[in-house]
Amino acid sequence: MITIIVGTNRKDSVSQQIAHQYAEILKELGVESNILNLMDLPIDYIYSALYENIGKNEQFNRMRSLMNHSKKFVFIIPEYNGSFPGVLKAFIDGLDRTKALVDKKCALIGLSAGDQGAGLALSHFTDILNYCGTNVLAYKLRLPKIGDFMTDNKINDPLYLSKIHKQAQKLIDF
Amino acid sequence: MITIIVGTNRKDSVSQQIAHQYAEILKELGVESNILNLMDLPIDYIYSALYENIGKNEQFNRMRSLMNHSKKFVFIIPEYNGSFPGVLKAFIDGLDRTKALVDKKCALIGLSAGDQGAGLALSHFTDILNYCGTNVLAYKLRLPKIGDFMTDNKINDPLYLSKIHKQAQKLIDF
Amino acid sequence: MITIIVGTNRKDSVSQQIAHQYAEILKELGVESNILNLMDLPIDYIYSALYENIGKNEQFNRMRSLMNHSKKFVFIIPEYNGSFPGVLKAFIDGLDRTKALVDKKCALIGLSAGDQGAGLALSHFTDILNYCGTNVLAYKLRLPKIGDFMTDNKINDPLYLSKIHKQAQKLIDF
Amino acid sequence: MITIIVGTNRKDSVSQQIAHQYAEILKELGVESNILNLMDLPIDYIYSALYENIGKNEQFNRMRSLMNHSKKFVFIIPEYNGSFPGVLKAFIDGLDRTKALVDKKCALIGLSAGDQGAGLALSHFTDILNYCGTNVLAYKLRLPKIGDFMTDNKINDPLYLSKIHKQAQKLIDF
Repeated sequence: MITIIVGTNRKDSVSQQIAHQYAEILKELGVESNILNLMDLPIDYIYSALYENIGKNEQFNRMRSLMNHSKKFVFIIPEYNGSFPGVLKAFIDGLDRTKALVDKKCALIGLSAGDQGAGLALSHFTDILNYCGTNVLAYKLRLPKIGDFMTDNKINDPLYLSKIHKQAQKLIDF
Repeated sequence: MITIIVGTNRKDSVSQQIAHQYAEILKELGVESNILNLMDLPIDYIYSALYENIGKNEQFNRMRSLMNHSKKFVFIIPEYNGSFPGVLKAFIDGLDRTKALVDKKCALIGLSAGDQGAGLALSHFTDILNYCGTNVLAYKLRLPKIGDFMTDNKINDPLYLSKIHKQAQKLIDF
Repeated sequence: MITIIVGTNRKDSVSQQIAHQYAEILKELGVESNILNLMDLPIDYIYSALYENIGKNEQFNRMRSLMNHSKKFVFIIPEYNGSFPGVLKAFIDGLDRTKALVDKKCALIGLSAGDQGAGLALSHFTDILNYCGTNVLAYKLRLPKIGDFMTDNKINDPLYLSKIHKQAQKLIDF
Repeated sequence: MITIIVGTNRKDSVSQQIAHQYAEILKELGVESNILNLMDLPIDYIYSALYENIGKNEQFNRMRSLMNHSKKFVFIIPEYNGSFPGVLKAFIDGLDRTKALVDKKCALIGLSAGDQGAGLALSHFTDILNYCGTNVLAYKLRLPKIGDFMTDNKINDPLYLSKIHKQAQKLIDF
């Protein structure tokens, strides 16, 4: 079972659209997946689920549980201010590292409106996941100018699509 | 006017203690400062002050205003999961980049309970600030095993203190 | 006096062409500069000028001296294998850090044939320079697909050129 | 077959000592290994084996061949100027990326005389290897103050040793 994480809590995000498309691609390859959307973080997450309250927010505990029970992840990471969304790192900060991340495996996709394709975000987030014990597939995808490559909420570009298929297969084999 | 940012919203954080000590050191050097503590972020910050709500949260707008009116910053950054706290990046994501960060100058201090001293956090956060147009003083401080070097909520270690004084002076001259 | 470093020892490199163009732009702005080309590294540099031989290679000592006597630098950095050329870091490893780099200032330009524009190279090299005490201008330039934007060995693209002028002026004021 | 790379061309390096010890540990775990020492790079490597001369230096081609025929690597990386040795990246720049690195797996060890343990070097080198298609084991080792933990050219510290054994086993299972 693979869990796909939508790496922002922005409503109706492009990352969410790509998560759904990634789930379909995994299904074609014979693998079931769940989507964990940071839009579902509790409204008071940064207080009610961190530090002395870690593990105490029932709404968030369902997300923690999903992470704990998955062996592989796909993180869809939009570029905000030259790196990943702060909310994505805050999400990591609320997990039980040992159960959620140690000795797990994952693939990373970065996307941006501009031409950087979240390259630094992928570098930073790899550092964090590696620190937490999660092995990151070398084949990471940078998807710059993502708006130019989508129609009807789906990536339509053959090159981008072939890269996603290639990554999905590599993650299955990882 | 220098603003010192406490880079976590954890209550009674060590970062907060160091921020107060840094303010005293700046005062000795003849420079006034403010402390901006992420503990004061609105409880629903990640919803009420980001994306379509950017600029609409009055409580947070006071923090934005303080950033906009400061020319220099000191960021006190505790290490969480091998990097900076997610909340610190979420804070950056809610600012008006042009007014708050472009062509500003700052100094960075990283601290950790473990022996890494937030080295990767400082690297990641430098990338983000540089992307946002803020010049980062090369002389960054890594303060590993911070608990061993504090008494009565203050750093007592002569080496750590001399480094902070040196950094504070460099920031004034930057 | 500003020294412009050609960040590769490849013959007839694009980086060298851009270095010459940068020198002209600085001249227009009223500032003299030197070009230090890594093509001039001694052929046996990695043995004769490092470790126990540091400071002993007369050919390289002229390059060291130029670094020691400059207060500001521009590094032109082509992307090799997702980062800076190994030779550029080897060059840094042969310097006298205290005389060449501490409390100096610099600007960075990254270029690539592909679409990444040496983004990770700039991040990595900033870490190294900051570690060595050199302040790095936040306004770094990523120049992807550089081949598409040059004619007769010069950048001809108005956007790229305006960014270089902007950076050059910022470096002068830094 | 695992190849252990001594990440510097310094003579009699600590990295070389650790490489030999790592080979013994792998042998205890039932796995043969080779050591590739950057001390064996051709004296004129940065000219005779890069760019238009890539693949033409017979002495270096033996090292390329060893890389091409290995599926897994261990990189022993000493910290120089806050990152990896320039020579290590120059070595990567002379390889045939497709044959040497794509879809391979590796483990990383960083060491330093100071207290940083080559943390940034490991981050930078992970970026480079990932870019080149090599999967990097999340469990990387930082070995700060290495001189304090060695006797007779061997690591003697139980904690450091247990970490190396753990990493070696993880690499075998990766």
